[in-house]
Amino acid sequence: MSFFPPSLERLTDCFAALPGIGRKSAQRLAFHVISLPEGEAEDFADAILQARRSVVCCPVCQNLCEGGECAICSSDKRDKSTVCVVAQPRDVASIERSREYGGVYHVLHGVLSPMNHIGPDDLRISQLVERVAGGGIDEVIMATNPDTEGDATAMYISRLLKPFGVRVTRIAYGIPVGSNLEFTDDATLLRALEGRREM
Amino acid sequence: MSFFPPSLERLTDCFAALPGIGRKSAQRLAFHVISLPEGEAEDFADAILQARRSVVCCPVCQNLCEGGECAICSSDKRDKSTVCVVAQPRDVASIERSREYGGVYHVLHGVLSPMNHIGPDDLRISQLVERVAGGGIDEVIMATNPDTEGDATAMYISRLLKPFGVRVTRIAYGIPVGSNLEFTDDATLLRALEGRREM
Repeated sequence: MSFFPPSLERLTDCFAALPGIGRKSAQRLAFHVISLPEGEAEDFADAILQARRSVVCCPVCQNLCEGGECAICSSDKRDKSTVCVVAQPRDVASIERSREYGGVYHVLHGVLSPMNHIGPDDLRISQLVERVAGGGIDEVIMATNPDTEGDATAMYISRLLKPFGVRVTRIAYGIPVGSNLEFTDDATLLRALEGRREM
Repeated sequence: MSFFPPSLERLTDCFAALPGIGRKSAQRLAFHVISLPEGEAEDFADAILQARRSVVCCPVCQNLCEGGECAICSSDKRDKSTVCVVAQPRDVASIERSREYGGVYHVLHGVLSPMNHIGPDDLRISQLVERVAGGGIDEVIMATNPDTEGDATAMYISRLLKPFGVRVTRIAYGIPVGSNLEFTDDATLLRALEGRREM
């Protein structure tokens, strides 16, 4: 049985359908929204519609943008011969935040995951292969997450790209800066030793 | 610097302005919304507008409803001579869930809180006094939360209502059903002893 007005219940249902929002949180959010000034509620509703309608994928790198090529692909300051392959648009933001990488990106929009029935055709892999086949690319950096699915995806793509004679690299495994050997897991420590470099 | 399309940033800002949603969660929610089928995104936006526009307060009990008197006030199965005073609409839902209470409610929409500059005029106290002054009410049950502000609000209102010759009661303090004496705090245990009843 419902103890709230139907429109409030409907809004609660909408919030509860979002990832990571439980029923109680959804109710709190719905209460907050009905207490907003009407202009702010309209602005929120409009922001949802605008974002849903205007955000598309860049035809080159598949990152999110609003029509045409994205800011990174259309910039003449970026090195187009180096492509960093990431799983999600938010990974582009993470790498950009480091302010060191000057190449371009390719966003897969996921990783291979047989458990979740996600195969190569569900990702933007064919677009990457076309890009590399088109020429002008020297290095492809695989920057998927260092977990089983990310590793498998990187491995799969590197095998697809090798025939084109392009250099395929993987971001380094090792101990994170500022962390502690004592609390580093065995697998990471092993990889850090394997990946050691001359000083 | 922003690494996402402006409309996505705007939606992230909207989510981040909600209570209890941090920047990272807001971003995840915004990504989820742009990945929804367009119909679902429109439904979400419409739910916000509808809830904001159609939810009003019941003119009698001040609970949330959609125009006219709320379902509880307009029901002829409820005992109109007993009024349970609660701080928030969600408290009505909590009490209704117990399926035991047959009276009606009065929602204050907050509690007295000098620290947050919330005084009697910011709550629906005058409407409660008018209801009681209008007659036909035998008992007012103060069911604000058992904390400092809830207690102070209950005390303040009981003093306002006493002159009308109405019985004003407070919900019982004590140990919660299913809990444990060992882990009950001193203040609660003291109140439980004070409130002991004949078996």
